[in-house]
Amino acid sequence: MKIAIAQLNPTIGNLTENGQNILDAANQATAEGAQLLLTPELSLCGYPPRDHLLNSSFIKQMAQELETLAQKLPPQLTVLVGVATPNPDAAEKGEKPLHNSIALIENGEVVNYFHKRLLPTYDVFDEVRYFEPGKESNCFVINVQQADENLVPVTIGVTICEDLWNDENFWGKRNYQHNPLDDLALRGVDMIVNLSASPYSVGKQKLRESMLGYSASHYGLPIIYTNQVGANDDLIFDGASITLNRTGELVSRAQPFQKDLMIADFSPTEQDFQETTIAPSPDNENEEMWQALVLGVQDYARKCGFQKVVIGLSGGIDSSLVAAIAQSALGGDNVLSVLMPSPYSSSGSIADAEALVSNLGIHSATLPIEPAMNAYDEILEPLFSGTEFGVTEENLQSRIRGNLLMAIANKFNYLLLSTGNKSEMAVGYCTLYGDMNGGLAVISDVPKTRVYSLCRWLNQEQEIIPENVINKAPSAELRPDQKDEDSLPSYDILDQILHRFIHEHQGLDEIVAAGFSEEVVKNVTNLVRKAEFKRRQAPPGLKVTDRAFGTGWRMPIASRIKG
Amino acid sequence: MKIAIAQLNPTIGNLTENGQNILDAANQATAEGAQLLLTPELSLCGYPPRDHLLNSSFIKQMAQELETLAQKLPPQLTVLVGVATPNPDAAEKGEKPLHNSIALIENGEVVNYFHKRLLPTYDVFDEVRYFEPGKESNCFVINVQQADENLVPVTIGVTICEDLWNDENFWGKRNYQHNPLDDLALRGVDMIVNLSASPYSVGKQKLRESMLGYSASHYGLPIIYTNQVGANDDLIFDGASITLNRTGELVSRAQPFQKDLMIADFSPTEQDFQETTIAPSPDNENEEMWQALVLGVQDYARKCGFQKVVIGLSGGIDSSLVAAIAQSALGGDNVLSVLMPSPYSSSGSIADAEALVSNLGIHSATLPIEPAMNAYDEILEPLFSGTEFGVTEENLQSRIRGNLLMAIANKFNYLLLSTGNKSEMAVGYCTLYGDMNGGLAVISDVPKTRVYSLCRWLNQEQEIIPENVINKAPSAELRPDQKDEDSLPSYDILDQILHRFIHEHQGLDEIVAAGFSEEVVKNVTNLVRKAEFKRRQAPPGLKVTDRAFGTGWRMPIASRIKG
Repeated sequence: MKIAIAQLNPTIGNLTENGQNILDAANQATAEGAQLLLTPELSLCGYPPRDHLLNSSFIKQMAQELETLAQKLPPQLTVLVGVATPNPDAAEKGEKPLHNSIALIENGEVVNYFHKRLLPTYDVFDEVRYFEPGKESNCFVINVQQADENLVPVTIGVTICEDLWNDENFWGKRNYQHNPLDDLALRGVDMIVNLSASPYSVGKQKLRESMLGYSASHYGLPIIYTNQVGANDDLIFDGASITLNRTGELVSRAQPFQKDLMIADFSPTEQDFQETTIAPSPDNENEEMWQALVLGVQDYARKCGFQKVVIGLSGGIDSSLVAAIAQSALGGDNVLSVLMPSPYSSSGSIADAEALVSNLGIHSATLPIEPAMNAYDEILEPLFSGTEFGVTEENLQSRIRGNLLMAIANKFNYLLLSTGNKSEMAVGYCTLYGDMNGGLAVISDVPKTRVYSLCRWLNQEQEIIPENVINKAPSAELRPDQKDEDSLPSYDILDQILHRFIHEHQGLDEIVAAGFSEEVVKNVTNLVRKAEFKRRQAPPGLKVTDRAFGTGWRMPIASRIKG
Repeated sequence: MKIAIAQLNPTIGNLTENGQNILDAANQATAEGAQLLLTPELSLCGYPPRDHLLNSSFIKQMAQELETLAQKLPPQLTVLVGVATPNPDAAEKGEKPLHNSIALIENGEVVNYFHKRLLPTYDVFDEVRYFEPGKESNCFVINVQQADENLVPVTIGVTICEDLWNDENFWGKRNYQHNPLDDLALRGVDMIVNLSASPYSVGKQKLRESMLGYSASHYGLPIIYTNQVGANDDLIFDGASITLNRTGELVSRAQPFQKDLMIADFSPTEQDFQETTIAPSPDNENEEMWQALVLGVQDYARKCGFQKVVIGLSGGIDSSLVAAIAQSALGGDNVLSVLMPSPYSSSGSIADAEALVSNLGIHSATLPIEPAMNAYDEILEPLFSGTEFGVTEENLQSRIRGNLLMAIANKFNYLLLSTGNKSEMAVGYCTLYGDMNGGLAVISDVPKTRVYSLCRWLNQEQEIIPENVINKAPSAELRPDQKDEDSLPSYDILDQILHRFIHEHQGLDEIVAAGFSEEVVKNVTNLVRKAEFKRRQAPPGLKVTDRAFGTGWRMPIASRIKG
């Protein structure tokens, strides 16, 4: 039996276009002889639809679109489509109004709905906000014609994303009360399919393959894992759908970070898949993260309707990396970089930025900001006379640049990309309404030490980021001879402390016990807390780690906390 | 039996200060002869603690602080304190790691914990993100000495906030599977206490009193409702704790919008409260909202460590209202208003702003922005020459003002208050990094029509907002003779459409069916969707309606949705 795995890239809420993409995949699947088509979780509305789900007319439109789609699908193809469906028991039983469902479509009709049982409500996930969990295990039967014309029934267990993330034996603990795998194994299914929209973070695909391989072999059941691909705001979905035999062996993998349609061939007699193509995974974490970021920029621009982006280039490593990502995502012709030197800019920085522009083949403009600095000094003179040059004046330079970039973005309908890294965003070493300006914060979840390793990786074959950009000491160049490390610990130390504090939720004592100076740790954790008001107003940032600032980081601002 | 109801105003995470406030309340309660002290939900850490709860060292500190506090409390006083506690079953049963609990303290020791059973996970609430619901109904017994020296046991049912919000008979539907009131009634308790942190929205107190009165009389049980007071970021807690007799009659009410300690006197023989003081509720919705906004500004400034605020005054009604709120919250001496006229500013606007400054007795400075406008024109000339004056140039004026205000805020450590109203924020009639700048958006949940009614209410006894500010046609004054209604429907129509779309979740068809022009409705809903990227970067805004932009509004940006 041939099963098509459609790794789709939906736009949130665009039911017509997403439906058309499912139909296209169905036609292709049929042409390739498939009997069953799998699509990702909520494939009709895209994941995550968030508060669009509170709009009842949106839920009605989704039901209509599903019906229209069902009628257009090839009748001989069984199709699983992800949709949000009303929960008829909600008012009577005091339940949530919707289910996160999979519609089973046969012969142009929806013949069953399967409801997601484990609803992630942590990090970026808010599923209990909208959905009631399904209470039953989900499966259906497909009759497969054998060479001898006999029909063999194959029972397929249906799970939705998180439903497979509670294998107690793999995790060493339970994450939810139920384990849908246990129930399906008891029902004697022949295979498990999983319809997912699992956001990328570094190393996630390895974790998935290891976890699913464990479960397949533990239950002795082959698994098909179908993942969404593409970026929706801050979340990047990496695709890389896979099939695993009942021994846990990986037999096929779809393209990572690309739309794809993969055919798996299941033998009902052998109860396993025939080996097909295994698309290569990225070689290393740098390559993986690079691909994620490129897709993130590409999809945010496309789905928001922008063809071109504008970026402020300082000659530093962060803006250089963002420019390289943008060039790879959209082509050099669609990237405008703007150099905005001040009297504090070093000639080296300008030369470095120009070298990068030339390496990338992107457009550039140079707009010296001194006239605006003088104008603000003049305007503020009545209030500021007698005060010393300080952070206020540094911020003003950053904000003048932010204004110029927004003026260009507004005038020519460009998307402004902001260039701050995660280490800066963590400790607030960035200017609100200045260098934080932008529609998308491309590397705001990339720690500074990773920015360096990404640039070195990128330069492996030829110099893309000028070597001088990588080798010079980082500086904001907002006052003479300023260096980042005048105000902050070295990025190597800083990133280790931040990782413990932000990702591992460690307290002061634990971090100090790991060998860091108490004074430094206290300073860093205080800076992180004090910068909350800045992060609250940051643009969405592409999530590439397991704990990013943004939708999955919900911190109070007016707060006093020790340690 | 005297019961003290401590309506406390905690700062999120400040365990030491919050603990001290509970201790002070306990000492006062003892001095007034109380036998039992009630404090709000999560009174030790403040509500909502949000992702601080993911930090295990914070949970440990809370447990230590609770123990320290218990030892200091007057031994003869029984005290209920709100704390987050670890769920020991989490890993084994696949449950959430914490409970939202009430500690029962007697004789210097925690003798029991009660866990919240209904966990709100909608709007601004994320409780399932952190907490496992309690599975049992909660009660304890206090022995009350009668005049004849006999001890009479009084059984007190304990509920936490949402636990009382599922009376199916009142709502006409269930919101959760269980109703803790049913269980407590079956256990034959003598009284229900509710420990709450229930955020304000307009009309909420009336709803609470009506709902609790209904439940008290339905179950024939007296109820004490103890609410948190004070603002934490976007959420304002209005206090107004109440006691209700078993007929549902209101017998006492604490001060709304103020810290308070109220004594209720319960007669075990009559099974009801003796009547005490009923603090007056605000006369009308305008007064209520005004008090909420004043408290919101006061607490955000205080809890973030600011004494003074700065506001850009345009001579328009929004900034005038915000200045009046700030003056009431912090005193005229702590408010700096800045007039930043451009060549497009009318002399009337400047005069209006000056009249307001004089009415309020606040500080002011005037900084004409033309030099900065010219500087930007000069800098951008190479890119912009030949293009027409348009939205870009309008935004630049707004951003120059935003930069000047931030420079003043940075230089003198003032909190910048932004002045945009909800109608503007909804349709994007505001400039990101311009007039949206600020640490707190004071009226971003106040629709424009309500801005007018608040100003008229404020002027009832004497002119505070200059009449001309109220009567003139609203204008951004970013180009000659500009009026808001050139770009938008009249605010009266706009606010009705917005209410249906944002609050009632109505679709295009429903709004048109209510009598609005399809073209206008389509235009408005499109504007709302297109402005999502601006709102994502807005400062926290004080929530005063049942659906505010901000933490309770979770919309995708890169999204295409019809209708």
